[in-house]
Amino acid sequence: MKRRTILFFIHGWLTASALFAQNGILVFQSDFGLKDGAVSAMKGVSVGVSPALKIFDLTHEIPAYNIWEAAYRLLQTAPYYPKGTVFVSVCDPGVGTDRKSVVLLTRSGHYFVTPDNGTLTLIAEKLGIQEVREIDEAVNRLRNSNESYTFHGRDVYAYTGARLAARVITFAQVGKKLPAEIRKIPYQKPVFANGVLSGTVPVLDVQYGNVWTNLPKSLFARLGAETGERVRVQIFNKDEKTFDDRVVLVNTFGESKEGENVAYFNSLLNFSVAVNKGNFAEKYKVSSGPDWRIEVSK
Amino acid sequence: MKRRTILFFIHGWLTASALFAQNGILVFQSDFGLKDGAVSAMKGVSVGVSPALKIFDLTHEIPAYNIWEAAYRLLQTAPYYPKGTVFVSVCDPGVGTDRKSVVLLTRSGHYFVTPDNGTLTLIAEKLGIQEVREIDEAVNRLRNSNESYTFHGRDVYAYTGARLAARVITFAQVGKKLPAEIRKIPYQKPVFANGVLSGTVPVLDVQYGNVWTNLPKSLFARLGAETGERVRVQIFNKDEKTFDDRVVLVNTFGESKEGENVAYFNSLLNFSVAVNKGNFAEKYKVSSGPDWRIEVSK
Amino acid sequence: MKRRTILFFIHGWLTASALFAQNGILVFQSDFGLKDGAVSAMKGVSVGVSPALKIFDLTHEIPAYNIWEAAYRLLQTAPYYPKGTVFVSVCDPGVGTDRKSVVLLTRSGHYFVTPDNGTLTLIAEKLGIQEVREIDEAVNRLRNSNESYTFHGRDVYAYTGARLAARVITFAQVGKKLPAEIRKIPYQKPVFANGVLSGTVPVLDVQYGNVWTNLPKSLFARLGAETGERVRVQIFNKDEKTFDDRVVLVNTFGESKEGENVAYFNSLLNFSVAVNKGNFAEKYKVSSGPDWRIEVSK
Repeated sequence: MKRRTILFFIHGWLTASALFAQNGILVFQSDFGLKDGAVSAMKGVSVGVSPALKIFDLTHEIPAYNIWEAAYRLLQTAPYYPKGTVFVSVCDPGVGTDRKSVVLLTRSGHYFVTPDNGTLTLIAEKLGIQEVREIDEAVNRLRNSNESYTFHGRDVYAYTGARLAARVITFAQVGKKLPAEIRKIPYQKPVFANGVLSGTVPVLDVQYGNVWTNLPKSLFARLGAETGERVRVQIFNKDEKTFDDRVVLVNTFGESKEGENVAYFNSLLNFSVAVNKGNFAEKYKVSSGPDWRIEVSK
Repeated sequence: MKRRTILFFIHGWLTASALFAQNGILVFQSDFGLKDGAVSAMKGVSVGVSPALKIFDLTHEIPAYNIWEAAYRLLQTAPYYPKGTVFVSVCDPGVGTDRKSVVLLTRSGHYFVTPDNGTLTLIAEKLGIQEVREIDEAVNRLRNSNESYTFHGRDVYAYTGARLAARVITFAQVGKKLPAEIRKIPYQKPVFANGVLSGTVPVLDVQYGNVWTNLPKSLFARLGAETGERVRVQIFNKDEKTFDDRVVLVNTFGESKEGENVAYFNSLLNFSVAVNKGNFAEKYKVSSGPDWRIEVSK
Repeated sequence: MKRRTILFFIHGWLTASALFAQNGILVFQSDFGLKDGAVSAMKGVSVGVSPALKIFDLTHEIPAYNIWEAAYRLLQTAPYYPKGTVFVSVCDPGVGTDRKSVVLLTRSGHYFVTPDNGTLTLIAEKLGIQEVREIDEAVNRLRNSNESYTFHGRDVYAYTGARLAARVITFAQVGKKLPAEIRKIPYQKPVFANGVLSGTVPVLDVQYGNVWTNLPKSLFARLGAETGERVRVQIFNKDEKTFDDRVVLVNTFGESKEGENVAYFNSLLNFSVAVNKGNFAEKYKVSSGPDWRIEVSK
């Protein structure tokens, strides 16, 4: 091997190390809620691994068993954390079944510790799959937890996430390498055809009752509608139409009146509808998930 | 310039630096709730600025668009954090309108990053205005966030608060100095006249349903009522009277019976009424804000 | 004194110091909720004592005044934090009465700062009492807080917990040593007699509506039931029977169908019942506490 080749490989290895090095930041997400001690027990295990960890929460209010929403919250949040951050997501309706426990390393250098049950669908699309490993529970499991069948969040996911984030283990020590793919939840991709934008309502902006869609601003541009113009918005629950009206497109809510329906681009730059200082979802009984469809036309 | 004068100035400058130096502590408040990823995205941006920051929450359960309550929570909490702490408060119904984005430095040495929409009303009165600066979004804005119109909390407030707290920027680098004043929400100040104390119900002690007022213990003293004595309490919603009864004044709930109405001084030393182990606000349908008035007499 | 004796004592003292040394981790629990600034004020006081503290939450959603549930959450969580951790628990319906403010050091090396009102019942049984001290409020009270009668959580418990966790004070400096006992809430211990297991429902798994009992797996073994077998479960509210059916025993929910009633061992290895992907407590109107009894037989 020539010297230049060696240097090339060393350079590549150093770059990869720097890109993918864990940074000591650990972020938890779950559907546990905050009323009992489950989340705190996960953090206790983590700080027991290393008191130097920086521990954060994404949310623990994922509706019970709602894997799709868990997937969406990772998409909404993870890109804003520095590379090297380790996310632990525990929304696990199939705990104890044969779903695999994995760690995904994305091309962006973020780590995701989770059951491979669809939770990774959106973040893998967004940040790209660098490598997937299966957690080897023979070594990556809290000591003396063998008798417990049901709290993988604490005994496997938090423990492994903490050890990885604190560099007690390398990514390779998580367990054996799997094919570079994750389990995906099928969902309607946004399309523009015959003058109509079609998409889904992946999630609500729950605090305000705003309806978010998966129609990106860039695709919306093909409609040729301008700020201040009204567009026709139709929302369907399966085949039932629940909303059909023309809605004004604004840059900011300040441009509209209190109580008025408005269309805007949310913080992820996706097309959204809201009632200015009101609750659109409640008013028009709109919810989110794969059964909800939206169509926008001029 | 004489040497003593120089020393005087250096001494003054050092004192000012020590008094107003940021301490690496960053505290978030918002009306976002904790069900989605908005709060976590703000923290991701912050820890990306500096992993050494100590990040805390005030509350994220401010009722949507309730600037008054946001103002009150700062008053209730900020003085208990060490000087040099940076608070980021995002309750921003007017996002995108011409309200200014500012940082207030109080005389006590605390920093407040917020839209200047009334949120600073009470904390400015309590801690004093040292200096107000307008955030220059040309420099103090998360890179690549220019296309997003709606998430100032993440892209401007969290980012600027984190950079200020971590001393990546000085206070002067926030942006240009404004006149030393902030936008105020008008509210009824506590008064004593003709044997009657008049005030407002600025906020409820929501977890227990206790009714807090803005009548300080020091003003109450002018009524000349003693612990164990009963005082007449009248509560009004605009002009409608919702409560009128004599209530016993106690030092601690332990001095009264379960289910009994009691008057006491809360942790801010303001006159308050409660049902011992019950919920006064629910029982008598009392709420809070500028429309609610209270009168206390012997 | 012989040299060996001296060495023995030094060795013992060093061991004790290492076992019981505070580790800088501070964990808060309360019934304050997160809607106002109370929890944040406690943290402000703490970080003012020492910015190096690692501050965590157990939960702040303890139902108001529910000491039993506060006791249970400590049991569920505290053992997962490293020894030397300081817990501050503020569920204090008797604030201002003669209940003592104490710090319990357990044999496991964990510290608990709390009113001695029954909150320590379960954790003292589980981890053992090493020493109990009464907080001397003459020294262990936030300066300038003397006029406030009602916020012991901030002024005494958080302040003392933070100073202890940060080693500003030693355990001895908390205050005078009390007899090694704490106030206990009486409750039904699990028993097996005449083929019937009897116990209580100490708490619900609130997020999912699962019903947890205090019947440990080890005692259940005496019933001689195997995984896959059905056992008879009866649940009583005082003398009224609210549930009576045969329920299948599973290792994991994945072994049962959606909507099916299942019995399993929870993360604390106690017998529990649930509806797979449903809410058992809601469906059968089961709650928790000393009034709720469970009987299990073959």
